[in-house]
Amino acid sequence: MFEITILGCGSATPSLKHMPSSQVVDHNGKYFMIDCGEGTQLEVRRRGIKMARLNNIFISHLHGDHILGLPGLLSSLSLNDFTGEMHVYMLPEGIDVIKQTLATFAHEPNYTLTFHPLTVENKVIYEDATMTVETFPLSHTVPAVGFLFKEKPKPRRIIGEMVEFHQVPLRERAALKDGADYVKEDGTVVPNRLLTRDPEPPSTYAYASDTMPCRSVREAVAGVDLLYHEATYGDDKVSQAHGRGHSTAREAGRIAREVGAKQLVIGHFSKAYNNNEQVLIDQAREEYPTAILAYEGLRIKC
Amino acid sequence: MFEITILGCGSATPSLKHMPSSQVVDHNGKYFMIDCGEGTQLEVRRRGIKMARLNNIFISHLHGDHILGLPGLLSSLSLNDFTGEMHVYMLPEGIDVIKQTLATFAHEPNYTLTFHPLTVENKVIYEDATMTVETFPLSHTVPAVGFLFKEKPKPRRIIGEMVEFHQVPLRERAALKDGADYVKEDGTVVPNRLLTRDPEPPSTYAYASDTMPCRSVREAVAGVDLLYHEATYGDDKVSQAHGRGHSTAREAGRIAREVGAKQLVIGHFSKAYNNNEQVLIDQAREEYPTAILAYEGLRIKC
Repeated sequence: MFEITILGCGSATPSLKHMPSSQVVDHNGKYFMIDCGEGTQLEVRRRGIKMARLNNIFISHLHGDHILGLPGLLSSLSLNDFTGEMHVYMLPEGIDVIKQTLATFAHEPNYTLTFHPLTVENKVIYEDATMTVETFPLSHTVPAVGFLFKEKPKPRRIIGEMVEFHQVPLRERAALKDGADYVKEDGTVVPNRLLTRDPEPPSTYAYASDTMPCRSVREAVAGVDLLYHEATYGDDKVSQAHGRGHSTAREAGRIAREVGAKQLVIGHFSKAYNNNEQVLIDQAREEYPTAILAYEGLRIKC
Repeated sequence: MFEITILGCGSATPSLKHMPSSQVVDHNGKYFMIDCGEGTQLEVRRRGIKMARLNNIFISHLHGDHILGLPGLLSSLSLNDFTGEMHVYMLPEGIDVIKQTLATFAHEPNYTLTFHPLTVENKVIYEDATMTVETFPLSHTVPAVGFLFKEKPKPRRIIGEMVEFHQVPLRERAALKDGADYVKEDGTVVPNRLLTRDPEPPSTYAYASDTMPCRSVREAVAGVDLLYHEATYGDDKVSQAHGRGHSTAREAGRIAREVGAKQLVIGHFSKAYNNNEQVLIDQAREEYPTAILAYEGLRIKC
């Protein structure tokens, strides 16, 4: 299961209503950050996110409202005695500038900082024992990628009373989780399906911001458990949306419905809707009736 | 007269109590910013500061908590249709990084942006018809300068009823403001002191952060109308203060008293005092009884 915490869901023009883009994905207590607009390090504190559990930061593209909080966050880690490893995944054109910013304005880090250059393609960029993160191309005014978080298939779940009944020895139980039948000493076969239950299906979470509606997004996010899709504008600003490489709330809803996403959160709202975000969620819900409007502090599981 | 608005008075380690260093000096409706920590552009909005009136930003030194908000503030100007001139004064070692950050993460500015390299010395770096700004060396862990804002001497103030009484023609009145006597057509001399009053004395404001107590500060801020002096630590952390190039609240108070500053505001508080800033102001007041504790949103005139 993934739990997403929204730290910022405004767009480029700053306002007092929203912070710029950032969110944290919690997978079994391991945190992953997506984007890091200015002020993210304070939002991390405000939401009680423990930095010690954060080792991977994914930056979708090189616009300031998605990255200008990165130098501050990375430089404060040293002041907060962070001693682990930090991995930052971003398009290569921005890596040197971030390094130079840290070298010029920050103390020498007392932790290991590694930059991983991204490419605009469908590609697994992170993998551990239980999950992967893949990039997929977005359609924005500059090169940009979305991120697809995928749990790996989980082991089958042992049915305690059946395992007791058939007296399966402890040493045989790991094999049951992988789907093996149990063969008794007398040769009798107890089929796996009597001893285990199906595991929870692997969960998937997709982040698509900033982007126009496009096939690459549709293909990558098909059937995901949760889709965070940008919805910068409403129906009244369709041409502005597309001209600036963005989507409308209605388009976000339509994509979620058409690809069969199981939940939809819309975000990255233009300041123009600060006093009337209801129109955005209303328009999204005409396409996808259970769409959720993001806000700073929203936590949602999938 | 200057009016100072404190936008941030915390120190390097971020906290939810204080923003990092920044403030705005208002001189007759013309704004000057000193330092620009991360998040400053939001504080500017929160305090109702009109960006259109801000054309000069002074950065004291190249530590992140004094400068990491600069790229965001400068890049948002374009989004907000700022079309004037912006002048940034900072130590030269940081200028290229800021330029590269803007070039990589921001839109092309639609205004004129000029960087002015500072040197660590006593030097007039800004001058207009009514005031000057001078740098003075601070004593910190890295090169750093304070800023001294000085009004120029003002014109003498005409006494309306006396000018009427002596029937001074309109065209002669400008000369009265500069101190000239009025000579009537019959040769009678009306001395200036009968026609004008002394002007308001020119005001001075000094900003000294980050710095240890030092002679350069004492000399530069002697007799100022208002001194903003850092007070990162209390008496319990004197060696930590000096080891990190900072002052204690008591030292700030002592300097203000010894140099005859007419008002003192202390700021740049360590996060360690978040729950007990009273000790800082108490210790400063043992040396300078009317010291004021800075906070975000404080406005003070001199």
